Amino acid sequence: MTYKVAVAGCTGYAGGELLRLLLQHPEVEIGALTGNSSAGERLGALQPHLAPLADRVVAPTTAEELSGHDVVFLALPHGTSAAIAQQLGDDALIVDAGADFRLSDADEWERFYGSPHAGTWPYGLPELPGAREALAGARRIAVPGCYPTASTLALLPAVAAGLIDATQVSIVAASGTSGAGKAAKPHLLGSEVMGNMSPYGVGGLHRHTPEIAQNLRTVTDGDVTVSFTPLLAPMPRGILATCSAPIVGDVTTADAREAYAAFYAEEPFVTLLDDGQWPQTAAIVGSNRATVQVVVDPTARRLIVISAIDNLTKGTAGGAIQSMNIALGLPEATGLSTVGVAP
Amino acid sequence: MTYKVAVAGCTGYAGGELLRLLLQHPEVEIGALTGNSSAGERLGALQPHLAPLADRVVAPTTAEELSGHDVVFLALPHGTSAAIAQQLGDDALIVDAGADFRLSDADEWERFYGSPHAGTWPYGLPELPGAREALAGARRIAVPGCYPTASTLALLPAVAAGLIDATQVSIVAASGTSGAGKAAKPHLLGSEVMGNMSPYGVGGLHRHTPEIAQNLRTVTDGDVTVSFTPLLAPMPRGILATCSAPIVGDVTTADAREAYAAFYAEEPFVTLLDDGQWPQTAAIVGSNRATVQVVVDPTARRLIVISAIDNLTKGTAGGAIQSMNIALGLPEATGLSTVGVAP
Amino acid sequence: MTYKVAVAGCTGYAGGELLRLLLQHPEVEIGALTGNSSAGERLGALQPHLAPLADRVVAPTTAEELSGHDVVFLALPHGTSAAIAQQLGDDALIVDAGADFRLSDADEWERFYGSPHAGTWPYGLPELPGAREALAGARRIAVPGCYPTASTLALLPAVAAGLIDATQVSIVAASGTSGAGKAAKPHLLGSEVMGNMSPYGVGGLHRHTPEIAQNLRTVTDGDVTVSFTPLLAPMPRGILATCSAPIVGDVTTADAREAYAAFYAEEPFVTLLDDGQWPQTAAIVGSNRATVQVVVDPTARRLIVISAIDNLTKGTAGGAIQSMNIALGLPEATGLSTVGVAP
Amino acid sequence: MTYKVAVAGCTGYAGGELLRLLLQHPEVEIGALTGNSSAGERLGALQPHLAPLADRVVAPTTAEELSGHDVVFLALPHGTSAAIAQQLGDDALIVDAGADFRLSDADEWERFYGSPHAGTWPYGLPELPGAREALAGARRIAVPGCYPTASTLALLPAVAAGLIDATQVSIVAASGTSGAGKAAKPHLLGSEVMGNMSPYGVGGLHRHTPEIAQNLRTVTDGDVTVSFTPLLAPMPRGILATCSAPIVGDVTTADAREAYAAFYAEEPFVTLLDDGQWPQTAAIVGSNRATVQVVVDPTARRLIVISAIDNLTKGTAGGAIQSMNIALGLPEATGLSTVGVAP
Repeated sequence: MTYKVAVAGCTGYAGGELLRLLLQHPEVEIGALTGNSSAGERLGALQPHLAPLADRVVAPTTAEELSGHDVVFLALPHGTSAAIAQQLGDDALIVDAGADFRLSDADEWERFYGSPHAGTWPYGLPELPGAREALAGARRIAVPGCYPTASTLALLPAVAAGLIDATQVSIVAASGTSGAGKAAKPHLLGSEVMGNMSPYGVGGLHRHTPEIAQNLRTVTDGDVTVSFTPLLAPMPRGILATCSAPIVGDVTTADAREAYAAFYAEEPFVTLLDDGQWPQTAAIVGSNRATVQVVVDPTARRLIVISAIDNLTKGTAGGAIQSMNIALGLPEATGLSTVGVAP
Repeated sequence: MTYKVAVAGCTGYAGGELLRLLLQHPEVEIGALTGNSSAGERLGALQPHLAPLADRVVAPTTAEELSGHDVVFLALPHGTSAAIAQQLGDDALIVDAGADFRLSDADEWERFYGSPHAGTWPYGLPELPGAREALAGARRIAVPGCYPTASTLALLPAVAAGLIDATQVSIVAASGTSGAGKAAKPHLLGSEVMGNMSPYGVGGLHRHTPEIAQNLRTVTDGDVTVSFTPLLAPMPRGILATCSAPIVGDVTTADAREAYAAFYAEEPFVTLLDDGQWPQTAAIVGSNRATVQVVVDPTARRLIVISAIDNLTKGTAGGAIQSMNIALGLPEATGLSTVGVAP
Repeated sequence: MTYKVAVAGCTGYAGGELLRLLLQHPEVEIGALTGNSSAGERLGALQPHLAPLADRVVAPTTAEELSGHDVVFLALPHGTSAAIAQQLGDDALIVDAGADFRLSDADEWERFYGSPHAGTWPYGLPELPGAREALAGARRIAVPGCYPTASTLALLPAVAAGLIDATQVSIVAASGTSGAGKAAKPHLLGSEVMGNMSPYGVGGLHRHTPEIAQNLRTVTDGDVTVSFTPLLAPMPRGILATCSAPIVGDVTTADAREAYAAFYAEEPFVTLLDDGQWPQTAAIVGSNRATVQVVVDPTARRLIVISAIDNLTKGTAGGAIQSMNIALGLPEATGLSTVGVAP
Repeated sequence: MTYKVAVAGCTGYAGGELLRLLLQHPEVEIGALTGNSSAGERLGALQPHLAPLADRVVAPTTAEELSGHDVVFLALPHGTSAAIAQQLGDDALIVDAGADFRLSDADEWERFYGSPHAGTWPYGLPELPGAREALAGARRIAVPGCYPTASTLALLPAVAAGLIDATQVSIVAASGTSGAGKAAKPHLLGSEVMGNMSPYGVGGLHRHTPEIAQNLRTVTDGDVTVSFTPLLAPMPRGILATCSAPIVGDVTTADAREAYAAFYAEEPFVTLLDDGQWPQTAAIVGSNRATVQVVVDPTARRLIVISAIDNLTKGTAGGAIQSMNIALGLPEATGLSTVGVAP
């Protein structure tokens, strides 16, 4: 069976990556492509890399255009998904790449997003314990944020195995600029970002902070506190997350590697790298793969774990399609690749 | 039927790109992977983006390792292919990504390469008139150089239609650094190339110069003279070729677009862009697509045509596989994509 | 004596570079700094690299703010300089980094800029024959465009010496993104420009085209026709101009080098590189130096000459200060450097 | 008085930056320039950005060539400085940009460098309490490592004021590729580093780790333990150090800003940025300035402090000259600038 899919917000980076991946997915047919200010324009001018869709015309983002599809991907600003979901009803699988339905704690939502909580949808990170069960047959999916995907995959086995003090987690994650979207802002100009490393949202302000903690809490009964510092790096794609926390007891690198190897043994899209190899973003560009490496610094008595993902693929569009596959009962890796485009 | 393929020189950039594409080719099985100084090492450490091949061990490049395959790709320094081809015999299809068998004029070869001419193999640029016929069933294929692919696709329709004075062709082509290979040289260090545009091989010295002229001569009886200046650009992949020549008579932009549209009407991997759109390398990264746009400057009385390709894909590995498909009688686009990885 | 200077348009890239250079100029005192939408803001937030000016507040761009200075630099959109100049009178030296007063041919101006011609000011390219005489004591200076600076310095000796057919000049010039300014536009986002080479203004449309031809006409009585193609390169600064034209007679590389060496023998900011070395933008970043190399391709019968400048320094702010020095009777190199910031 | 200075190791990145800065230093005259494999070559081909020194010929690195200078800068591989220093005697001020004499603890030295400890020289970080007194009149100076400079300047006020638990310090520092030097290695190729973030020396292995701890111990009697993770970033220059540690008691952002403002009130080359502004490497490229910003995350109960320096300037050559100025009794900022080259 072929599923008819629509993409709302097809002109941005998340929408473009969804389409790039859907074009190579054997079980889908691409239906409506909608946008906002670009409605009426040809996609060829807006997403010149999507050659097979060049002649498609962008439709306006309305429930009418989006109805009649088996799957609707929403790559929209947060705050807009609830209304569309209500209008589309439960026939369609709605996969929201935005933030609206990620957080389960309404207070946290309101504190970080400043608007009323819209609810919670099944969370599209299959590697979380229990997630696949919740996603199977789901009609609604909240796609995780890109930083939470990278950070959670890095830390989950350590928290689950009790290797670290989860109240002292520190994450410094460098992201490519596509994570900041396609809206033109002066500080995102090429002239500004090339040759430049810069932080933002420092001090616990970034909205992905509570989402990371929420994910880690799924594998521990203890407290979880996360310090998260995002950096803008001079590259278009990729996240490198450097995570650390104090070790518990006399945990060694060997202990950690064993725990990670066991945790990810069956995961198709997470690789614990060989001893001596470290994640690098270039190796996973365009792929749905997360790479992870872990070590214990015995002097600092700290576990350091580093992960790399493509923020647009595993961090957004690839993760979304992986979850869609599970929801639809398709083999989870359908249409997704572990092969990166390098150099 | 599944074809068993080997890749000699699997650790370099051309070899890596061949493997990236072969991994998604439905009709091949990847056999021997050979290298030189890295024989005995795991591919995971050398090509970390090729996740499915991480556990493969690099074999030495010998006729013994390479025998028993239906197709053998050679991604080796020039001067080494003839000996291997001889040892492998005519059972295998040998696709040489190197230069040894590209030029038909032995004098030109010796002048530019400084060694005896080894011969001429069917030339793997299917878009050249007559090329598909020559490639069908071929047992030997010489893969074009990356600059010749970009330049030839840009200029071929103009020369064929007699729109320009082909004795006054000027080409300035900017290439990503992967075109210079993976051997560590000081001027290719990241510290040197980032933020830097630099020329090399200026004044007719680059070895791709006679190959471009040879290609253009296939569509004209007149003289062809090419001035070719390559530039190193601060990006890993992509070639942007800016080509120009004096127009003949009163050729207009409309005339030129018409000639180009007709010439490439049936080509699966060459796109004449819509009026107003120009090639950019980012849109074709990782794809086998060449994009082309043409205009006539009526004041300068000059036709300017610009093309973009990925030097590793359409310019090397993708073009090689496209030609392999033709030689094997497979649909030409098998395993190849027109979708780029952007941003 | 210390000259009091104002900079109108201090928040853009040209304004920022003027201030960077003026801060190290021993004979000036920095007075009013004016802007438009940023009036009232501290410069520290807008130009964080200009540490000594961090506490300065941006004033509005009015004649009142700009009066009372010995020198006023205008780094403003074209079309705005004439009114300001009139209001300031002839007491101040006005140095216009914009285009308004560069072209002497009113028809050319109107054709390329679509507005009435405002007049012609002394042209601030000291290397043009006669320019220093015109600039000495001048009260008005039109700073050349960045592409015309790079292209003119590359071609001037060849045209002056009659080495090339000046009716067949072809220029392909790659520029860093700062040349496109600081206004946020989607195609200038870091995500778009990194890893990307793209052309624009192809086919004789770029406004710098007639300015280049005008400059070359100062050294020949013959016709001059220029084909000019600008490229956007993935780097913040720098222009690499690849220029070529058919040679006249049997001109050799030795002839060309001799002509260039003689032409630039006394120039403090133009270097004909040693035989075998080629211009690269990284070597001149932040400096006021132009580097040039020339060769004749005997097969193509074409002279190829390549130049590199920093578009913001020699191409805008450095050239402006060099001309200011001449106008004020200061040593021409005061406050300017030939040392680049590399790597 | 003019000081005659020699630079041993003039062809690398540290040597090149020393020369760039020395060329604009009003009190020095550049004497011998020495190298190793490049002895006999012209500097113009090796450091093309140093225009005024283009005709200088590289001499071999011998005591004979280096004698007769007031100041000798050593930009050499570690392990080579002691022998040269001995041969030159105490007449010359020797400024070692290498690691040999940085660490005071012989055991730490041997553990991280694997060779016998050569001794300890006055440490060239003037911002350390007591450092200026030790440097005044010194005949030997050990220039700090680039990461220690960035990390120490970020953390010093917090440790001195007892704001943080110094046994739980975590540092993640992203560096431009010039920090890895000019020796050609495959993983430093432009093709590899562009678009790539990658870690190295993870788990307490990097040799700068004990140096950072040693510096922080100068302002506390308590224990200091540092977890340090260096990242390679796709840019030529700059370090962005993200440092954090648990706060002590109820320290607030206001407390922290007050402590930092007081600590750096008189420092010419360290700027605590305005509230709301964060360090970015682009703003300090080519300058001797360190920028710092600090915040307390009250949820994570963690102080986060971020600093930016140019690894080659404040992190190596600028810091070296700053210390030289102190040793020679010159005003500390002579020949150094706080102005960056941006964009």
